[in-house]
Amino acid sequence: MMRPSGRNLSDMRPISIETGIMRHAEGSCLISCGDTRVLCSASIEEKAPPFLKGSGQGWVTAEYGMLPRATNTRNRREAAAGKQSGRTQEIQRLIGRALRAGVDRRALGERQIVVDCDVIQADGGTRCAAITGGWVALRLAMNKLLKAGIVTADPIMDHVAAVSCGIYAGQPILDLDYAEDSEAGTDGNFIMTGAGRLIEVQMSAEGATFSRPEMNQLLDLAEAGIAELVRAQNEAVACAG
Amino acid sequence: MMRPSGRNLSDMRPISIETGIMRHAEGSCLISCGDTRVLCSASIEEKAPPFLKGSGQGWVTAEYGMLPRATNTRNRREAAAGKQSGRTQEIQRLIGRALRAGVDRRALGERQIVVDCDVIQADGGTRCAAITGGWVALRLAMNKLLKAGIVTADPIMDHVAAVSCGIYAGQPILDLDYAEDSEAGTDGNFIMTGAGRLIEVQMSAEGATFSRPEMNQLLDLAEAGIAELVRAQNEAVACAG
Amino acid sequence: MMRPSGRNLSDMRPISIETGIMRHAEGSCLISCGDTRVLCSASIEEKAPPFLKGSGQGWVTAEYGMLPRATNTRNRREAAAGKQSGRTQEIQRLIGRALRAGVDRRALGERQIVVDCDVIQADGGTRCAAITGGWVALRLAMNKLLKAGIVTADPIMDHVAAVSCGIYAGQPILDLDYAEDSEAGTDGNFIMTGAGRLIEVQMSAEGATFSRPEMNQLLDLAEAGIAELVRAQNEAVACAG
Amino acid sequence: MMRPSGRNLSDMRPISIETGIMRHAEGSCLISCGDTRVLCSASIEEKAPPFLKGSGQGWVTAEYGMLPRATNTRNRREAAAGKQSGRTQEIQRLIGRALRAGVDRRALGERQIVVDCDVIQADGGTRCAAITGGWVALRLAMNKLLKAGIVTADPIMDHVAAVSCGIYAGQPILDLDYAEDSEAGTDGNFIMTGAGRLIEVQMSAEGATFSRPEMNQLLDLAEAGIAELVRAQNEAVACAG
Amino acid sequence: MMRPSGRNLSDMRPISIETGIMRHAEGSCLISCGDTRVLCSASIEEKAPPFLKGSGQGWVTAEYGMLPRATNTRNRREAAAGKQSGRTQEIQRLIGRALRAGVDRRALGERQIVVDCDVIQADGGTRCAAITGGWVALRLAMNKLLKAGIVTADPIMDHVAAVSCGIYAGQPILDLDYAEDSEAGTDGNFIMTGAGRLIEVQMSAEGATFSRPEMNQLLDLAEAGIAELVRAQNEAVACAG
Amino acid sequence: MMRPSGRNLSDMRPISIETGIMRHAEGSCLISCGDTRVLCSASIEEKAPPFLKGSGQGWVTAEYGMLPRATNTRNRREAAAGKQSGRTQEIQRLIGRALRAGVDRRALGERQIVVDCDVIQADGGTRCAAITGGWVALRLAMNKLLKAGIVTADPIMDHVAAVSCGIYAGQPILDLDYAEDSEAGTDGNFIMTGAGRLIEVQMSAEGATFSRPEMNQLLDLAEAGIAELVRAQNEAVACAG
Repeated sequence: MMRPSGRNLSDMRPISIETGIMRHAEGSCLISCGDTRVLCSASIEEKAPPFLKGSGQGWVTAEYGMLPRATNTRNRREAAAGKQSGRTQEIQRLIGRALRAGVDRRALGERQIVVDCDVIQADGGTRCAAITGGWVALRLAMNKLLKAGIVTADPIMDHVAAVSCGIYAGQPILDLDYAEDSEAGTDGNFIMTGAGRLIEVQMSAEGATFSRPEMNQLLDLAEAGIAELVRAQNEAVACAG
Repeated sequence: MMRPSGRNLSDMRPISIETGIMRHAEGSCLISCGDTRVLCSASIEEKAPPFLKGSGQGWVTAEYGMLPRATNTRNRREAAAGKQSGRTQEIQRLIGRALRAGVDRRALGERQIVVDCDVIQADGGTRCAAITGGWVALRLAMNKLLKAGIVTADPIMDHVAAVSCGIYAGQPILDLDYAEDSEAGTDGNFIMTGAGRLIEVQMSAEGATFSRPEMNQLLDLAEAGIAELVRAQNEAVACAG
Repeated sequence: MMRPSGRNLSDMRPISIETGIMRHAEGSCLISCGDTRVLCSASIEEKAPPFLKGSGQGWVTAEYGMLPRATNTRNRREAAAGKQSGRTQEIQRLIGRALRAGVDRRALGERQIVVDCDVIQADGGTRCAAITGGWVALRLAMNKLLKAGIVTADPIMDHVAAVSCGIYAGQPILDLDYAEDSEAGTDGNFIMTGAGRLIEVQMSAEGATFSRPEMNQLLDLAEAGIAELVRAQNEAVACAG
Repeated sequence: MMRPSGRNLSDMRPISIETGIMRHAEGSCLISCGDTRVLCSASIEEKAPPFLKGSGQGWVTAEYGMLPRATNTRNRREAAAGKQSGRTQEIQRLIGRALRAGVDRRALGERQIVVDCDVIQADGGTRCAAITGGWVALRLAMNKLLKAGIVTADPIMDHVAAVSCGIYAGQPILDLDYAEDSEAGTDGNFIMTGAGRLIEVQMSAEGATFSRPEMNQLLDLAEAGIAELVRAQNEAVACAG
Repeated sequence: MMRPSGRNLSDMRPISIETGIMRHAEGSCLISCGDTRVLCSASIEEKAPPFLKGSGQGWVTAEYGMLPRATNTRNRREAAAGKQSGRTQEIQRLIGRALRAGVDRRALGERQIVVDCDVIQADGGTRCAAITGGWVALRLAMNKLLKAGIVTADPIMDHVAAVSCGIYAGQPILDLDYAEDSEAGTDGNFIMTGAGRLIEVQMSAEGATFSRPEMNQLLDLAEAGIAELVRAQNEAVACAG
Repeated sequence: MMRPSGRNLSDMRPISIETGIMRHAEGSCLISCGDTRVLCSASIEEKAPPFLKGSGQGWVTAEYGMLPRATNTRNRREAAAGKQSGRTQEIQRLIGRALRAGVDRRALGERQIVVDCDVIQADGGTRCAAITGGWVALRLAMNKLLKAGIVTADPIMDHVAAVSCGIYAGQPILDLDYAEDSEAGTDGNFIMTGAGRLIEVQMSAEGATFSRPEMNQLLDLAEAGIAELVRAQNEAVACAG
């Protein structure tokens, strides 16, 4: 079988992570996974949300957006529509939850880091790119806190990265682009730590239900993909000095 | 280990499904899973959404709500707040997606069925109860269409039911109530067909990441739970005549 | 003349009030007036609204909602529409005002009771059922406060109950169901105390204006209806122990 | 007993109705009831609302607003707040309902008249002034339709006017100003036709419940007040020529 | 060339400013510039906005509205639409900015003055009339503060007035009415002090771009117009005593 | 005098315009004016807005946004806030108006071009950069229409570019960055055509009023700046082939 992208079943798209892309942010990067490009920034706020007052713990949250013309046909600007879609809210809740799973919130102390993920160009897998790139922005912001001595123990416990998998024309494939995603019978996202532990599994039948053996094949693919993403994260952080 | 509920690790809560609870709806039921109670109704609309115009296919969608005092402390009414929360939107998108996976939308024809799931009392697992009960309401509405000859081939392909699982105090458990849910390190929902195929898997680490073997144990539990729910659905539909 | 319901001009529909229907609420009931069914709950909040700060007085307020399929054709969910309709707001203001008329707010002290009235099934007279049932939920919550010694003097001064009347085919009738309501030339609601004093009179010509003698006949009917409702309230509260 | 205004129990405030105050509107007036001043305009739209399409009947609707500084302390502008208050919606629904009761909607034909009532200065009784003045604007717009031959039979069946009454310091009084209104135990509004038939009765206990004999005294006062308002309407329309 | 209004190129429309028109406001006027009529009120609030806390400085802000039937065809009420249009927001930001340019905010002290400008009738130039009339309302409110000794040094540094200019049929004209405004190739507003200094220049090509010499001719016209408006402001304030 | 940026009074910041930055858009560029960076895209829609139906004319409109962390401290995301600020609306109205002034809407035909301008990084002058870059995106989209033969006569009549000027420490300066902008007594924007005709002049006193001679000096600066921007536009379009 041939994937629309011409890739092998277990091939990822080329990954690039360019750091320091937004001058004002405490941490930032532009992550490209093939033609999907997401700007990620991390903003430190010296105030935790009210529900953590006095708890000694911090918070990491995320917001997600997409430029109106990131996609093939222009989407309505959410700010003009007057509300974020259910899809946007679902994605940003997912990003925040995923990133928090890799953070020791007590080591962070009572402050909040807001990770903004804005899709500049979309070609499938934007939420996974946002998580993988968002972690780099978060890592850089944490480095700033450590360097300034504001935080003494590293609040980052491990990498967090995400990749999509799906069943396309009856075959399990890794890292779906838009053309593959829109045809896949089942697809989903796996979020894992650098150590290979699971943070989140979201598999969803869009046209055809799936079996446990298929689910296991998808997990195998995901583990390989995550390892590749973690390497890219490490390189980007190393380059940022 | 003792669960807060005193149940064994693989015990479901008592299930009851009372049909015909809302006089005006084409299909309806009140589902109780322990202390969680959800009113489900299915409304037939003889017009599909605009994006299906001329496609010959129908649509199934869902809306979810919770009475302000369904919970231990009163929640703000979403209608008064002026918008549905991200959580509500995420849940109702999930319910709709799950129910559609069990429907032949071509057999349904160009009409829409709206399944409303309103939580009267909450004690964990409301989205799973909504899916399981929503399917019964949908089944009854389909029966009405078949009986009236409006639809000739049964649009229902199989049961759809959902159950939660989680890792509590290091042990995999089935069908979490609120006390268990709020303490579980990992939890999630499995949505399956009557034939045991997977529709949706959503596992999420809320405090502790999880391993593949743990994920497999949770799937084992879920399969048993779903079978029990499908039996309850069958009984309820049979009673409804 | 025959009413669509087959009832005599001065007949009420069967009333039933089931208490304790919502486990979490301090007071709750399901009131049925014929096919109209409303879930009522009372939630105690140990904080009065800001405008009463330091006044030594409490507040009783109400919110009203209707499940989308409580009616013959499905209504749009207000939470999804993003606002409460003018009708909803008008009704919940009325319920709150009516219940406050039966409460000694100084005896209540600086706390607030929120009465939620959610219509499960509608067949005319939902606002009257909400007031009558809302009072029962309020009474039960007050009993809890008294029993716990949080409040020492009973803040309830008298019953509050409501009934609709109207002029149908030229004849004054009591307790209109939906079929009667939608055809009545004039209709309205009377809210009264257990002692028969008037709290609110709302008569409105929907198609034909009315005279003072007609208004007096409607008041006669209302007085009889209210007496019956007060008896049902007493029984329900007695059963709740 | 002395009223704060120094008026006798059955005294109305001075009424003035200046017509033609808004150049663009088909009918308009500035009504003053004492210090309460309301700008009323009637706008003819050659299209009835969708629910009347093909019915041969027209519609009359109303909108109500208040300038932020119409009152003693500045109120937030509703357009800035992003929604109309429950009070505003309740009032404008009342005005529309009241005016429709005096209109033969079949004679009007499939068109709509929107009556805008904007309070320039408030001193109690703004909804009553809006109804009484709104009727004058409506009457003038109807005259325009008749004169132009667009409508052949007069759609106005009778005057519609409104007045407030209340129980102040134990005494029934007519046409309450703000000082009286804020202290009255019971108050309400009576809307009547020129022939003295009732359109709407809204009596509400704000602090003390009331008896049937009191209700009858209030109706006596209202009948006298309405007669005076109808005279003022007639004079204004006559002047407008 | 003949202007639609029959005026000479440099003719203003008749100006009238009637003060004290809104009993409750600390300063108010009704300004008429030809058929354009705007109600202006100034409300003193003894609390500056949060961002000025502790600064010793006050604030002047403005809100702008238009009655639905101020115009030839009825506009939707912004409060009903649920938001202020971009045009409204742009205008009220302009009014506030202009008035602040004439105020010594330190002399005002930590309080806020809200100037409400509501257009009763529109015939072009409503924002200019709002600024010119808004200044009179502000001046009167300041006089009240001075008289009461709440403020000791006059916070008003100079007059603020505004006039429109444009290029109509190739000719520069002053003070455009609606018919002229809707045909002008270029138009704009000049806001100036009593001393003839510029506060704001807003020239905009709506159909034809313009040259620097044309811009200078428009400025000449504006200077003459502003002088006339300042005289009218002085007379109105003098009359108000 | 020294500008905070160290530039001479009449120095522009370095300009760069990179085209083709957004794969899906019909025209796009990333414009950098110093540290201010704006992503501009032009989207062709084969449907004009309703008010132009049957007119034979097209429309050009613009939307403006800013990433939350484009600025020194994070701004709230407008999509999350549920509305666009007054500032955003004012800016996007300005961009649309400016671009339309350079377009022959009849030559465009009944279609619409939406220009999206999203600020990635802000350092003063974002609206000017958006106009200058937006024109490049528009030009490229028009080229596509011409090349495809959808449009036969070039709808672009001339360049449109914008630059800011202001009075800083008493001296007129060109192209203000954030540090200069926040201290300038007067500032504003000039929008001009390639031929040097004026499209829009917006000068505003933020702290100190200004004189006509100063205004003339600012216009001199603007003319020079616009010429430089037009050269950059030409180069970028030439590069894009």
